[in-house]
Amino acid sequence: TLCKQSERNLKKKEKDSSTNMRLKLPITCFILEIILIILFGVLVEYDEDTDAKKFNKHFNTSMEHSDAENDFYYRYPSFQDVHVMIFIGFGFLMTFLQRYGFSSVGFNFLIAAFSLQWATLMQGFFHGMHGGKIHIGVESMINADFCTGSVLISFGAVLGKTSPVQLMIMAMFEVTLFSVNEFILLSILGTRDAGGSMTIHTFGAYFGLMVTRILYRPNLHKSKHRNGSVYHSDLFAMIGTIYLWMFWPSFNSAVTEHGDAQHRTAMNTYYSLAACTLSSYAMSSLTAHDGKLDMVHIQNAALAGGVAVGTAGEMMLTPFGSMIVGFLAGIISVLGFKYLSPILEEKLKIQDTCGVHNLHGMPGILGAIVGAVTASLATKEVYGNGLGRVFPDVADGREASYQGGIQAVSLAVTLGIALIGGLIVGFILKLPVFGAPHDTTCYEDSLYWEVSMMILMLMMVFNLKTSHHFTFYLLF
Amino acid sequence: TLCKQSERNLKKKEKDSSTNMRLKLPITCFILEIILIILFGVLVEYDEDTDAKKFNKHFNTSMEHSDAENDFYYRYPSFQDVHVMIFIGFGFLMTFLQRYGFSSVGFNFLIAAFSLQWATLMQGFFHGMHGGKIHIGVESMINADFCTGSVLISFGAVLGKTSPVQLMIMAMFEVTLFSVNEFILLSILGTRDAGGSMTIHTFGAYFGLMVTRILYRPNLHKSKHRNGSVYHSDLFAMIGTIYLWMFWPSFNSAVTEHGDAQHRTAMNTYYSLAACTLSSYAMSSLTAHDGKLDMVHIQNAALAGGVAVGTAGEMMLTPFGSMIVGFLAGIISVLGFKYLSPILEEKLKIQDTCGVHNLHGMPGILGAIVGAVTASLATKEVYGNGLGRVFPDVADGREASYQGGIQAVSLAVTLGIALIGGLIVGFILKLPVFGAPHDTTCYEDSLYWEVSMMILMLMMVFNLKTSHHFTFYLLF
Amino acid sequence: TLCKQSERNLKKKEKDSSTNMRLKLPITCFILEIILIILFGVLVEYDEDTDAKKFNKHFNTSMEHSDAENDFYYRYPSFQDVHVMIFIGFGFLMTFLQRYGFSSVGFNFLIAAFSLQWATLMQGFFHGMHGGKIHIGVESMINADFCTGSVLISFGAVLGKTSPVQLMIMAMFEVTLFSVNEFILLSILGTRDAGGSMTIHTFGAYFGLMVTRILYRPNLHKSKHRNGSVYHSDLFAMIGTIYLWMFWPSFNSAVTEHGDAQHRTAMNTYYSLAACTLSSYAMSSLTAHDGKLDMVHIQNAALAGGVAVGTAGEMMLTPFGSMIVGFLAGIISVLGFKYLSPILEEKLKIQDTCGVHNLHGMPGILGAIVGAVTASLATKEVYGNGLGRVFPDVADGREASYQGGIQAVSLAVTLGIALIGGLIVGFILKLPVFGAPHDTTCYEDSLYWEVSMMILMLMMVFNLKTSHHFTFYLLF
Repeated sequence: TLCKQSERNLKKKEKDSSTNMRLKLPITCFILEIILIILFGVLVEYDEDTDAKKFNKHFNTSMEHSDAENDFYYRYPSFQDVHVMIFIGFGFLMTFLQRYGFSSVGFNFLIAAFSLQWATLMQGFFHGMHGGKIHIGVESMINADFCTGSVLISFGAVLGKTSPVQLMIMAMFEVTLFSVNEFILLSILGTRDAGGSMTIHTFGAYFGLMVTRILYRPNLHKSKHRNGSVYHSDLFAMIGTIYLWMFWPSFNSAVTEHGDAQHRTAMNTYYSLAACTLSSYAMSSLTAHDGKLDMVHIQNAALAGGVAVGTAGEMMLTPFGSMIVGFLAGIISVLGFKYLSPILEEKLKIQDTCGVHNLHGMPGILGAIVGAVTASLATKEVYGNGLGRVFPDVADGREASYQGGIQAVSLAVTLGIALIGGLIVGFILKLPVFGAPHDTTCYEDSLYWEVSMMILMLMMVFNLKTSHHFTFYLLF
Repeated sequence: TLCKQSERNLKKKEKDSSTNMRLKLPITCFILEIILIILFGVLVEYDEDTDAKKFNKHFNTSMEHSDAENDFYYRYPSFQDVHVMIFIGFGFLMTFLQRYGFSSVGFNFLIAAFSLQWATLMQGFFHGMHGGKIHIGVESMINADFCTGSVLISFGAVLGKTSPVQLMIMAMFEVTLFSVNEFILLSILGTRDAGGSMTIHTFGAYFGLMVTRILYRPNLHKSKHRNGSVYHSDLFAMIGTIYLWMFWPSFNSAVTEHGDAQHRTAMNTYYSLAACTLSSYAMSSLTAHDGKLDMVHIQNAALAGGVAVGTAGEMMLTPFGSMIVGFLAGIISVLGFKYLSPILEEKLKIQDTCGVHNLHGMPGILGAIVGAVTASLATKEVYGNGLGRVFPDVADGREASYQGGIQAVSLAVTLGIALIGGLIVGFILKLPVFGAPHDTTCYEDSLYWEVSMMILMLMMVFNLKTSHHFTFYLLF
Repeated sequence: TLCKQSERNLKKKEKDSSTNMRLKLPITCFILEIILIILFGVLVEYDEDTDAKKFNKHFNTSMEHSDAENDFYYRYPSFQDVHVMIFIGFGFLMTFLQRYGFSSVGFNFLIAAFSLQWATLMQGFFHGMHGGKIHIGVESMINADFCTGSVLISFGAVLGKTSPVQLMIMAMFEVTLFSVNEFILLSILGTRDAGGSMTIHTFGAYFGLMVTRILYRPNLHKSKHRNGSVYHSDLFAMIGTIYLWMFWPSFNSAVTEHGDAQHRTAMNTYYSLAACTLSSYAMSSLTAHDGKLDMVHIQNAALAGGVAVGTAGEMMLTPFGSMIVGFLAGIISVLGFKYLSPILEEKLKIQDTCGVHNLHGMPGILGAIVGAVTASLATKEVYGNGLGRVFPDVADGREASYQGGIQAVSLAVTLGIALIGGLIVGFILKLPVFGAPHDTTCYEDSLYWEVSMMILMLMMVFNLKTSHHFTFYLLF
């Protein structure tokens, strides 16, 4: 029957292609993990707040009530919120694809679990060394998750078109370059970027866009019928969206100074996101010919407000300022999805599956600019004694306008490293040994996962429009 | 073909009706957001714990270790739990409708993002003014989310029968009236209602019930085949239920006094909900002719225990008392779904989509009564020095029985404002300019959202029972 | 028509069987809840941190700033994470079955709500009595959730093959035996097991495996076509997996000592899980003939790293040690699913629906062994003043090697109580009064839940492979 024939064709394609992961994936995972374990054994130590001996130095003396001073209680709730954003937020946001839900959540899970370990080492190497050892605790865990977030943004750009081995290789290089860029910004230039408008979002987006540009597939239209959502896949994606939206205040405030800074950052982000949501809905309805809302906009643009206050959120931006920024971010993001993405694909050959340019790229740049302007306006009058806690360099004598200039330069540095890094890594990923899927088998779970044939057939039904030669009764 | 014809009919209906949101929704969102931004610019300031200058007044002096005293660390974890209830809990609870999942989550998202901004202003105006400015921080954020919760309860009553513009208008008025009622209760009468049995649940439920009464649709049966669940939509709804259930202890304890009060409230709620779950399952099975559990009861009644200890949870109710209250709430709620809701619909013409009367209305009243009784029994002997932290007025000389009377009066005030407010707002929403859906297109996502036709056809298959003239092979 | 006939058959079967829950379930729930309420009334009191009088003893004196010392702020965020694992994590992990989603989430909800109340009493009776009263607060709530987790592990072993009444009876006995075992280990032997590798995972797994052994069904193959997943049911299950994975650091650290211990435990667990994820993916791909990943492995084995550091997580295991343990746990778990489970089913007649032996059984034993070894290596040199906070008995003079021996003995005690307890409870559950489902109606929601017939028919379509005599057009 036709059904069996189609099954056979699919099977054959899989064999023809070099996409079989039987050896490639296990070898990649085992080698990387063993290297990680060895490096952790050699280099990593508990920090002052996680080591039993160091933390309890004064236990049973007059200082014994210091448990509450452990950084755990300041940061762990924020860490868990960030953790949810990384694994549920990013993972489910990408399940909108009709036949790629397993891969979206599953590869997100895999590369995140790898990246957070590798990031611990890379970030520790650049700014966590103490006497030849990397000291780790809850703050380094948050930073590792942050770096992982950047990798997952890039994953969004290449979603459906890369094998898990390609993704692991990409993650390895991206984490490294992320750490270099972060080191230049935070440690050398003295840039402020607590929520990562530049270090995380701009970097992740433009790195991923360049990778997907290099991996350009002229015949991607052969998988086009799977590059879209079905009803329930959009609902799964909304789980991701809502979690990202809710916990973004924790994301932006997770590694700011204790006290007012964490508090203020969370609040600024909260109002920015709320304003962004209204402008996203408005623009989505306005730009549709019949006023209908587009799930793609709601799932993505409503989050741009969190990206756009990533840098300035810890500053005295005020809720008023935050709302203006969020409001603009939502508008820019929807316009990007509607008008810019098609141009990028046609003219610049950038196939951006999740539209990360609209959610992380442009709002990230906006956030960097807002941060530069806000920093250049910082005064002792507004910040009082808190100035040194938000802008240590300014409190130490640096001009606020100079700090603003540094922030702007940091954006340029980030873009440069992201684009050049993406270029190189893109070419590495093109090597024909990593098992990239064929143009006809993109956005397809069954290439990498055990999926019962029956469900595949039902999914074909969903796609009948694009494959008229199938008739329903033949399928069953 | 029949398929194309049906598609054309649906399209035509959409055009005939004035339900096109192309201009209405963007204009509403833009105007409201711009007003919000202006008012925030004029009126809102950081409070003592979010302002860099004010909080760090004594930084670098002997008092520098005050970071841990920032209210952020007392309340932010609870805030995030409440936030999850508002956006995931309420949003997904309402996805049980088979074709209204996008709208349930999506409109929940939109009106919540609006309401929390508007509530910040309204609540600040009534009880957060300092020298002509509204001071905000994490506690005001929780209160804004609480007020939003009330709006979402009303949303549950009118679910599927209102356009997003109607919902925005309703939210605007309801937030305002909520704040008036809250001001009368908490500031004028000195009522205690930390978890909002009255201010949130009773108010939201009866306001919404009155609105849906005024918006009564005699021909709603034309959309009846969509007013029900399918298998996976019920599973999505369970995500909402479980999150509401888990985080209700955080909800009730989020704005109580620090220390024992937060701790006790969370624990009382935990045990009330556990007892409520058992009585809900028991009643659901008992009232079905074949002993089968009804997902509607489990999704809703099991939560009534949280509502019913909203007022008394912070008091010395004891776990024993909490369990009795939860136990009764579950029974009342299932009975309401089974026997009262049909009567309300037939006799009183109240079409309550989510059954908010059973989850928020009756349990809210029960909670108010339990609170009045518990307050009237408060003694210095039981509360010790904590009396002033739970009942400041009683510690200042008010009789406990008088406090109990005040609590009872507060219920009456709440019911009055909710019903009269709902009446007026219901008539406003009847104005034919807000694009309400037709009687034939209620509970239908495709009116407001881009939904692929293919999935709609599959959904029709699910509904074949009610539309026998369709035959399956014609659909494909 | 055939359709109606099949419907009639199903209906008949339901009547023939004694599976009707109309009276059995309500009576069970009502009696148990009323007993619980009475016992709470007689036995339970607020502890020092939840009682208004006791906590505020010194309020308005110089000690008034003690609010932050309330245990609530040290443990409540962890409690909520654990709570999410119990109700969302376990509940959704089990929704992988195609027709058993309502029961998976719903019965999980019911037996957890019961177990946490019963566990409060049982655990309080064994180690929370103060002057004849059980004192409760956030730590007892976490412990009650932990005990509940153990019951839910056993639920995983018998999933789909037991009625809700059987589950309630099982929960009642298991909570009791859990508390006995926990008392012997923690209070008598002085065993350390903060994350419950032994008390929770090993106990729950082997208890459940023995129960399912006693309930062995030789004709279970008659329901085999429903014992598997469909596409979206696997995505729902991933929600459970990811939440368990993310919050496991909170689980293991929830009841350790304040300060460095909580901090270190969370971090060790974080790295163990990350390493475990990579080895799970590697093994899943390696053991499949075509290199495809198996959702069952990803959903389960990736969590084994959390189980395996349940005992040693609070010790100075180091991230390096944690990663080795997690790495091994992932490998063992996948191998168990692939090669051991089929043997257990065929040779030992253990029908383990969720494969709890692979996720909780073997990794639990591994965790116990790792804990024993780590404990036996504890020195004052490594732990400093923190020694007494991790190993009070060792600080009081017990040899570290002796402590290691005690840990090993504890594993044997746990296995013994679990297996003997499971044996007895299994035979009790065999009594023909609890309404167990027929061999032909296992893994089937419609036995216990109102499910629309239409969806059932569509589900049959998914199963056409196994029931060829149905043809599609007859179904509609």
